[in-house]
Amino acid sequence: MKAVVFDQFKTFPTLKDVEKPTPGPGEVLLKVAGAGACHSDVAIFSEFTEDFGPAQMKPSFTLGHENSGWIEEMGPGVEGFEKGDAFLVYGPIGCGHCKACSRGQDTYCENAAGMRYLGTGLGRDGGMAEYMVVPARNLVPLGEADPVAAAPLSDAGLTPYHAIKKSLHLLGGGDKFALVIGLGGLGQLAVQILTALTGATVIATDTKEEAMKAAEARGAVIVPGGEGQAEKIREITGGKGVDAVVDLVGVGPTIELGMSVAASQGRVTVVGIAGGNYQWNFYTTPYETELANTYWGTIEELHEVVALYRAGKIEPDVQVYAMDEALQAYHDLHDGKLSARAVVAPHGR
Amino acid sequence: MKAVVFDQFKTFPTLKDVEKPTPGPGEVLLKVAGAGACHSDVAIFSEFTEDFGPAQMKPSFTLGHENSGWIEEMGPGVEGFEKGDAFLVYGPIGCGHCKACSRGQDTYCENAAGMRYLGTGLGRDGGMAEYMVVPARNLVPLGEADPVAAAPLSDAGLTPYHAIKKSLHLLGGGDKFALVIGLGGLGQLAVQILTALTGATVIATDTKEEAMKAAEARGAVIVPGGEGQAEKIREITGGKGVDAVVDLVGVGPTIELGMSVAASQGRVTVVGIAGGNYQWNFYTTPYETELANTYWGTIEELHEVVALYRAGKIEPDVQVYAMDEALQAYHDLHDGKLSARAVVAPHGR
Amino acid sequence: MKAVVFDQFKTFPTLKDVEKPTPGPGEVLLKVAGAGACHSDVAIFSEFTEDFGPAQMKPSFTLGHENSGWIEEMGPGVEGFEKGDAFLVYGPIGCGHCKACSRGQDTYCENAAGMRYLGTGLGRDGGMAEYMVVPARNLVPLGEADPVAAAPLSDAGLTPYHAIKKSLHLLGGGDKFALVIGLGGLGQLAVQILTALTGATVIATDTKEEAMKAAEARGAVIVPGGEGQAEKIREITGGKGVDAVVDLVGVGPTIELGMSVAASQGRVTVVGIAGGNYQWNFYTTPYETELANTYWGTIEELHEVVALYRAGKIEPDVQVYAMDEALQAYHDLHDGKLSARAVVAPHGR
Amino acid sequence: MKAVVFDQFKTFPTLKDVEKPTPGPGEVLLKVAGAGACHSDVAIFSEFTEDFGPAQMKPSFTLGHENSGWIEEMGPGVEGFEKGDAFLVYGPIGCGHCKACSRGQDTYCENAAGMRYLGTGLGRDGGMAEYMVVPARNLVPLGEADPVAAAPLSDAGLTPYHAIKKSLHLLGGGDKFALVIGLGGLGQLAVQILTALTGATVIATDTKEEAMKAAEARGAVIVPGGEGQAEKIREITGGKGVDAVVDLVGVGPTIELGMSVAASQGRVTVVGIAGGNYQWNFYTTPYETELANTYWGTIEELHEVVALYRAGKIEPDVQVYAMDEALQAYHDLHDGKLSARAVVAPHGR
Repeated sequence: MKAVVFDQFKTFPTLKDVEKPTPGPGEVLLKVAGAGACHSDVAIFSEFTEDFGPAQMKPSFTLGHENSGWIEEMGPGVEGFEKGDAFLVYGPIGCGHCKACSRGQDTYCENAAGMRYLGTGLGRDGGMAEYMVVPARNLVPLGEADPVAAAPLSDAGLTPYHAIKKSLHLLGGGDKFALVIGLGGLGQLAVQILTALTGATVIATDTKEEAMKAAEARGAVIVPGGEGQAEKIREITGGKGVDAVVDLVGVGPTIELGMSVAASQGRVTVVGIAGGNYQWNFYTTPYETELANTYWGTIEELHEVVALYRAGKIEPDVQVYAMDEALQAYHDLHDGKLSARAVVAPHGR
Repeated sequence: MKAVVFDQFKTFPTLKDVEKPTPGPGEVLLKVAGAGACHSDVAIFSEFTEDFGPAQMKPSFTLGHENSGWIEEMGPGVEGFEKGDAFLVYGPIGCGHCKACSRGQDTYCENAAGMRYLGTGLGRDGGMAEYMVVPARNLVPLGEADPVAAAPLSDAGLTPYHAIKKSLHLLGGGDKFALVIGLGGLGQLAVQILTALTGATVIATDTKEEAMKAAEARGAVIVPGGEGQAEKIREITGGKGVDAVVDLVGVGPTIELGMSVAASQGRVTVVGIAGGNYQWNFYTTPYETELANTYWGTIEELHEVVALYRAGKIEPDVQVYAMDEALQAYHDLHDGKLSARAVVAPHGR
Repeated sequence: MKAVVFDQFKTFPTLKDVEKPTPGPGEVLLKVAGAGACHSDVAIFSEFTEDFGPAQMKPSFTLGHENSGWIEEMGPGVEGFEKGDAFLVYGPIGCGHCKACSRGQDTYCENAAGMRYLGTGLGRDGGMAEYMVVPARNLVPLGEADPVAAAPLSDAGLTPYHAIKKSLHLLGGGDKFALVIGLGGLGQLAVQILTALTGATVIATDTKEEAMKAAEARGAVIVPGGEGQAEKIREITGGKGVDAVVDLVGVGPTIELGMSVAASQGRVTVVGIAGGNYQWNFYTTPYETELANTYWGTIEELHEVVALYRAGKIEPDVQVYAMDEALQAYHDLHDGKLSARAVVAPHGR
Repeated sequence: MKAVVFDQFKTFPTLKDVEKPTPGPGEVLLKVAGAGACHSDVAIFSEFTEDFGPAQMKPSFTLGHENSGWIEEMGPGVEGFEKGDAFLVYGPIGCGHCKACSRGQDTYCENAAGMRYLGTGLGRDGGMAEYMVVPARNLVPLGEADPVAAAPLSDAGLTPYHAIKKSLHLLGGGDKFALVIGLGGLGQLAVQILTALTGATVIATDTKEEAMKAAEARGAVIVPGGEGQAEKIREITGGKGVDAVVDLVGVGPTIELGMSVAASQGRVTVVGIAGGNYQWNFYTTPYETELANTYWGTIEELHEVVALYRAGKIEPDVQVYAMDEALQAYHDLHDGKLSARAVVAPHGR
């Protein structure tokens, strides 16, 4: 079968023929429906080296950590699935038996240091291929919903969902305000999730006009970047500030913006991995406003993301590529030519 | 000035001339904008006796515990208000210095037993009059919003809001379901509050067609009472049951219904004071589903209710009466002729 | 190997020779260290019939759902364990891939109806044997702590721990009170858990003097059953009532007691499965006091229970039996001769 | 009567005769039992100027924001108190009718900008005097407990209590760890509060041997500052890190220490107002660990602090001064000669 393989460090991946995998104990073989191309894939093949990047993610392996597919075959010990049923795949894979894995939060597996991979497409063969193997436990049923467009939800949907869940208690009631900084794929989903789950006024900001229009159509109040941005945001809140900021960018100025408009007793969650610095000081932070980063989410949360998708409340913007166009998807992503999430659909839509 | 006075037990109130009151220390005089007529007022004048009912609520006093008004005069020690500004009134009045009162939850005042009244219109002169006196601390600013229609929010809005707040953590996320039983004034507001604050599917049930149509127009999924009611509700939830039930009726069968359709780890909150019995048993209750009653709410919550009202997200259905028609309002209420909350507006709308 | 087998309905189990099991995919073979004998085992063999009891628990299978043991062998696909290491076993086993199982709460598995068993010793062979097979995911490391005495923690420890965790937010602060009703094995552990985790005054009640003395030695304030019991409890709380009641009995009078002494905004959790009825009524329940049952707990919570045990903060009272004395353990349990949890230690202590 | 008056900026206060005050509407006159001398008082008289410091705290006013006393006289509108009863005083004073004040959190009063003072001893006459006037709402009953030693609890007790309360959900269960940085007055109380309220292992660190010994005697595990400090702390936690850090110092290195030893999904709360800088970065902060400052607490929390004090679970270390020695107390504080909180007891102990 065909697969997009990360062969060596600092080298563009190749589309090649590999053997169709066989599911091991507790695993299933999925016929891949969709595989999202993520910015972090680009980091894997263009930035990682023998010395830089997680030890579990050395080449060679098939890329793709945002996947969906249909059950094709069940490995030893797997029961309760029907061939042809569609599922979304929870990407992270931990040891499976530590405290964190027991609650379905493999991202914080206590034994990660000893693992040979961090997830599908993350050290272990992922879904940028015609077939893939995943642990049965990582499957979330999609029912009748479109599995191709669903693929990005497993990362671009779950990541903002998890970040928002940590802030939900701050948004539960009248007179609440949320701010989404950065309106790319994750930001658009953040706006949709906030609009679906809360009664908060959702403020959204970006520098791209088109992205802001899309967010506005999804219910956000738009504040463009630039002069007076913080003042305008604060004004919308009636002066009190934003209860929950979700920063999908993560450069110094966006964290700075978030902290400067946050309400006392609010929260600023940095999701974007740009790695910017922010100088925290007792006297310049609003009282009791929490600053924290975040990382992906839990299996249970992915069930909830899928529920929103199946109910039509959230929908990723996708641009579909055929298996043969998979490398083009990464080129387009790398060159900034995409306005939607690139999803490779090896078996068509 | 004119006032609707509860003169003696088991006697219809009278509209009479009384002296315009003077604000004491920490109090303000309000020119009344609206005074809601509540079913519990009917209980006060038709059911209470020397021996039945709270000791703090003996006649004679002016009725009306759902009030709004404009600042007319400030008593000693009161600052920070402007004459003419509109406010909603938090009805309960506790000792003001116990732990419960310190957090603005006068409903659970630890010194209630020693108080001479329980609130405005509840042992102390209320707002069914041209003017009323309230503690400055009990005022919530209405800004430019209509103060007449706002009046019922202080009870018919705050009570379901408080009940829903206790369930909000169960409704925060995808795949959540709420059920509102009883679609009178409080039920219609419960539907609006749930729709405004959560992404849950809001199911609503009643026996009156008109009430259900109104709830449907407010975003609820309707299930009529009668044959197959519980099955239909459960089916809407995909079989798992309702995460949060709010029962605005409180007779045996409605509590029974709530418990029978509740999800495991859900909650059934009984708001309605019909006083029905429910036989709880370990084996017939869903696992970990909480059953609890509730009572009114806090000052802080009333600020949040007003925020929803000012943002246009909730609106009570009101039928406005002039001061001279106040007794007619109680007659209509008593006779079941109202399809909206009766609000007396002594100074017009 | 020897095993205590539930052969047929309404029949005392037999100690017989059975084949040593082989671990399947994702499973491990444990050399059993301890197997607790539980009252629910007695219900299984003395009360269940073809028509009464869960369909997943038909004979024949080896009893024992409270187990600990040493790794003996790993099945296909299992990694990360060392032969000889000691573990406590999480008893419930769900489908492994639904939302509830994903968070390690197999007790509420959404696919339980289609499962062939509910857990080890619960339809599937349990730990009343020299060896047992368990899913690797169900193991909690015991380190150097005594595995024999640990066995009951997986049920008699986890069950009250889970119940208490649901009340912990009510006990977090000064001026808090907890009440433990019923001071058998679970009750003694409840007292220890409450004393270890909270600053609450822990009140404990029973009818047996000896049990009360033990609870007192563990830090509880004792109130004997009988005349004036509720008044004494309420007096200890300074009149406000108990914030969190844990009822390990569950007959009508104990639920009644719990509700009558509960504080407003408190919680009564019924753990005991005696199945008593309680008549709930709006006017006789304290305001906003939650009434709920509960059932076992999660894998993550079992990790926390073990942490308390390894830190010496909780310790089950056990009476150890050899493999050959296993039936005697059940006889003693059935006849009420035990003052501690019977633990069968097939390989000695 | 005698009072310690802050007369002018950058000038040591004076002990002078002033008029005994009269309680206004809603206020009481207290005969002062104890008045704690706080480091922030020193900042008031030695650092503030016309341009630096809150506008509400201009001279002249009597110092003292940590106070206790006996009811001497009640102002207009005040009921429910007995002359001679002892109370602790909640220091902050807001407008009394905004959302924050309604929940007893005057520290975040929405109308603070328009207030003439921020609290007793903070722009308005405080308790470093024979008598003081406070709003009735700010009183917390002390019962039979020693009111002199209680005085510091209203700040040095409430401040860490509030900080700890925000972390309590992270400490509720087995396998939890807390870290207290800085073992002065607030730090010693933080150790006592954590030990009283949680089952967490409480780690404490300072550079002073004596302070560490005191913390150890109160149940903390001690780690001295200097070489290997972070490694030792992390080792105590079994490598996972500290769930809740409370930093009572707040210089750059202590915040840095807190963040470096915090567990993923933990919390670092900066209480100390040294104003140090910390450079936050996505890649150097543990996943989802919250960083936040904090400020004083709520009236309700002060009730809970007093409950712990009355139950003998916390006790401030105090050094008592007579009224005539009040200036000496400030000199000793300023010169670093105190190893306990200086409390002026104008009417003896």
